[in-house]
Amino acid sequence: MFPKNAWYVACTPDEIAVKPLGRRICNEKIVFYRGPEGRVAALEDFCPHRGAPLSLGTVEDGKLVCGYHGLVMGCDGKTESMPNQRVQGFPCIKSFPVEERYGFIWVWPGDPEKADPALIHHLEWAESPDWAYGGGLYHIACDYRLMIDNLMDLTHETYVHASSIGQKEIDEAPVHTRVEGEKVVTSRFMEGVMAPPFWRAALRGNGLADDVPVDRWQICRFSPPSHVLIEVGVAHAGKGGYDADATHKAGSIVVDFITPETDTSIWYFWGMARNFKPGDEELTETIRVGQGKIFSEDLEMLEQQQQNLLAYPERALLKLNIDAGGVQSRRILDRIIAAEREPSALLIKGAAS
Amino acid sequence: MFPKNAWYVACTPDEIAVKPLGRRICNEKIVFYRGPEGRVAALEDFCPHRGAPLSLGTVEDGKLVCGYHGLVMGCDGKTESMPNQRVQGFPCIKSFPVEERYGFIWVWPGDPEKADPALIHHLEWAESPDWAYGGGLYHIACDYRLMIDNLMDLTHETYVHASSIGQKEIDEAPVHTRVEGEKVVTSRFMEGVMAPPFWRAALRGNGLADDVPVDRWQICRFSPPSHVLIEVGVAHAGKGGYDADATHKAGSIVVDFITPETDTSIWYFWGMARNFKPGDEELTETIRVGQGKIFSEDLEMLEQQQQNLLAYPERALLKLNIDAGGVQSRRILDRIIAAEREPSALLIKGAAS
Amino acid sequence: MFPKNAWYVACTPDEIAVKPLGRRICNEKIVFYRGPEGRVAALEDFCPHRGAPLSLGTVEDGKLVCGYHGLVMGCDGKTESMPNQRVQGFPCIKSFPVEERYGFIWVWPGDPEKADPALIHHLEWAESPDWAYGGGLYHIACDYRLMIDNLMDLTHETYVHASSIGQKEIDEAPVHTRVEGEKVVTSRFMEGVMAPPFWRAALRGNGLADDVPVDRWQICRFSPPSHVLIEVGVAHAGKGGYDADATHKAGSIVVDFITPETDTSIWYFWGMARNFKPGDEELTETIRVGQGKIFSEDLEMLEQQQQNLLAYPERALLKLNIDAGGVQSRRILDRIIAAEREPSALLIKGAAS
Repeated sequence: MFPKNAWYVACTPDEIAVKPLGRRICNEKIVFYRGPEGRVAALEDFCPHRGAPLSLGTVEDGKLVCGYHGLVMGCDGKTESMPNQRVQGFPCIKSFPVEERYGFIWVWPGDPEKADPALIHHLEWAESPDWAYGGGLYHIACDYRLMIDNLMDLTHETYVHASSIGQKEIDEAPVHTRVEGEKVVTSRFMEGVMAPPFWRAALRGNGLADDVPVDRWQICRFSPPSHVLIEVGVAHAGKGGYDADATHKAGSIVVDFITPETDTSIWYFWGMARNFKPGDEELTETIRVGQGKIFSEDLEMLEQQQQNLLAYPERALLKLNIDAGGVQSRRILDRIIAAEREPSALLIKGAAS
Repeated sequence: MFPKNAWYVACTPDEIAVKPLGRRICNEKIVFYRGPEGRVAALEDFCPHRGAPLSLGTVEDGKLVCGYHGLVMGCDGKTESMPNQRVQGFPCIKSFPVEERYGFIWVWPGDPEKADPALIHHLEWAESPDWAYGGGLYHIACDYRLMIDNLMDLTHETYVHASSIGQKEIDEAPVHTRVEGEKVVTSRFMEGVMAPPFWRAALRGNGLADDVPVDRWQICRFSPPSHVLIEVGVAHAGKGGYDADATHKAGSIVVDFITPETDTSIWYFWGMARNFKPGDEELTETIRVGQGKIFSEDLEMLEQQQQNLLAYPERALLKLNIDAGGVQSRRILDRIIAAEREPSALLIKGAAS
Repeated sequence: MFPKNAWYVACTPDEIAVKPLGRRICNEKIVFYRGPEGRVAALEDFCPHRGAPLSLGTVEDGKLVCGYHGLVMGCDGKTESMPNQRVQGFPCIKSFPVEERYGFIWVWPGDPEKADPALIHHLEWAESPDWAYGGGLYHIACDYRLMIDNLMDLTHETYVHASSIGQKEIDEAPVHTRVEGEKVVTSRFMEGVMAPPFWRAALRGNGLADDVPVDRWQICRFSPPSHVLIEVGVAHAGKGGYDADATHKAGSIVVDFITPETDTSIWYFWGMARNFKPGDEELTETIRVGQGKIFSEDLEMLEQQQQNLLAYPERALLKLNIDAGGVQSRRILDRIIAAEREPSALLIKGAAS
């Protein structure tokens, strides 16, 4: 139950630096590697000769060589050669549209004809020298929508991340959710609160006092198929909050690309982009390690929640105001998935309405 | 295939001392914790908000707080509060009758209306200062009835526990099985035998010579749903055996509470109660460690037996005289289970007979 | 999908030296042990009393004693005795024809009446003092036919075993496959090539120069149900190749007995028989360790290939000339399996053809 005609983050460049990478995405077994001129390529991870996984092979001169019997595969899914064989009649394997952009490899697991690179999520911060980014990858055994719910309702920070970014005022501050076309925005503002440990460290890292009241904000932006970018930050109280001058605040964007592996497992690419001290690599690493630890606290909860939902499939879950971000995101996903499955039905319905 | 209207041992108090405990019992996922005034509570391990396991939460002032978004659950299964939410309309979750008694937490996974604490298995030794108890818990992947069979036929000691409590004379001594209402008693008496290592140690521990012939007894008492208490002991030969004066014997009660987790797995609470040197905690620990080692010898056998029975479901097993204890226990269980499923059918049948 | 009326290698004698061995072969759970006079015996691994695995028992005076309650089983599957029991009416368990020969235990998992020890694969090298043998056992999660394919197409050496026995010339040399009744022979000869590392070491081990061109040969012989014996070797170039005098060459027989455990897993007995320096046990061990390392390189490939085939069951694999050995072997297996299932149909078909 996920859109297939969409650009998903598949991996990061370091994962294909030395050898091909086999990764299941949206139930498709795919091999990623650097093809001719170092351009990334994505193919079915299935050698047409005897079904060996091509990801166990090697890349030679931009060509993927099967590690079992040496079949040489082109990045279009056509066999180029094989020792002592005529390969013209060999069946093709699927090739997947794939792009490298913003420091990620993006794959389109659905209909290749619909794959327009211009549809890739635009990430301003990834193109600007004023920003730095650090992140990581977790594999989690849960439906990708449980992670969207998680990120679109940050009240969980108070409980799951009590010792780092959680604070009681998150629960208490009203949350606003609005739908903008295919996007959902959930925002929360807290005024005159004391910053929790993670943000005190960020203030100090930014050369600001950490023992005075701050205004804190969280603006979660969902966009299909499964991206949640969250503007977060604190400013010394009374300086304008979210709109305060940069000299009074510390902020960043929490980056979450949630790529379904199967119906009940995900590749979770998490990270943080910040626009202060972008050249400080040590700070980038410190933040990355800290964020990795905080985000790992969600894993057990999400996996056990998934197990509970599988055990009690008939139970209806509550949809409270705090859940509105996830609920609205799921509605958009439902429409997209329905349109993929029955494009004509949707058109008719659209005409009638 | 187990009675649900029954009191089962769910856990021991130390397991809920620090945080809630999630445990599946008779296929029900249950969270155990200490509620108001320290009284134990048992609820479905499923938060009505988004299905998170409540066992990952915390207890605050006797209330279970969901570790995901802070829903506060009462011990009756009704949500008490949630930050910034009206909770009156929240669906209830099941609460399970639960009692703390004799050093154990007992749960009733079936119909709460039938749960009478007076039905909890009465354990005299657990209430008397003349007795000491030590025990432990094993998780075993087998049908609970295989463990009942195991304990109601102690000829296995000769083979499984050859180096500790087994001895050839167990096989050779006749066994007597009788049914007393819903209870089954299987007994065996050996006269003038040499005590095996465990019992020689027990004689020494009790200040008695260990190198003289003894009379040995084993009296296994099954009671539903799945308890087997076994009186075991040795007395210097010719002093009256089971009825000998306390100064001539060493005896104890082997305690076995077998709680089904699923149809093919159990929580096995094992222990030993003794009425000599009850204040000697070091002796309690020595016995506990020794018993734990002996009882662990059954695990592989039971789990592989279970695998064999699943692989050959059509095979009829033998029911020998030594198996009578298990066979009679299963008959009682079958009647109880049938009555739970079709109470009226049972009444009619009862009237006709 | 494997012949059951056939002799398979079940284990090696060291595996039953100390206690019984439980092993699943062709989906049958079997216990192997040394019965009367040390003769090997094979029985269903299922005690007729309560279904315990007999492989957890002990052998006493050539009799298998169940480790649960002491039932004494004869090597014909009839219970011989049990403490205090009359056993005449006990149901029998299956006994399997089993033979010890050539340093292996062979079992016949099918119809015992058809089990003729004369049908055991004759291994000349195993009976001659001029030969030495060393080998090992791997458990691999793949269909046994994938391993037959692997061994009947050695072009994979170039890719899977690039650093030891692979070399580019394997791909380039033509391969010849012929069927001889129920046997398949695939052979390849390379002339005037430089030996790869494993064979350079073998030349040195045999007192021959390792830095001169050699003629290399590979003759793979499949015989049902699942044996592949491969004559391999190198001779100094121009000395007659395969037919060169022993003083100019180093050769051996790669031994592969592939025993199905289930439809998708195998017990893979691999080894090497050589007819030079047969008394040099240190050399035997050196070769064994080296071969074990090389052969372990196939495991991941085979297991992932199996996973791919299960994921894409509808895909037809290619059957190239290099695959002819495997393809022909599978045809023979298909005929044998069909004949086992419908012997009369085969006779009629045979009469009509």
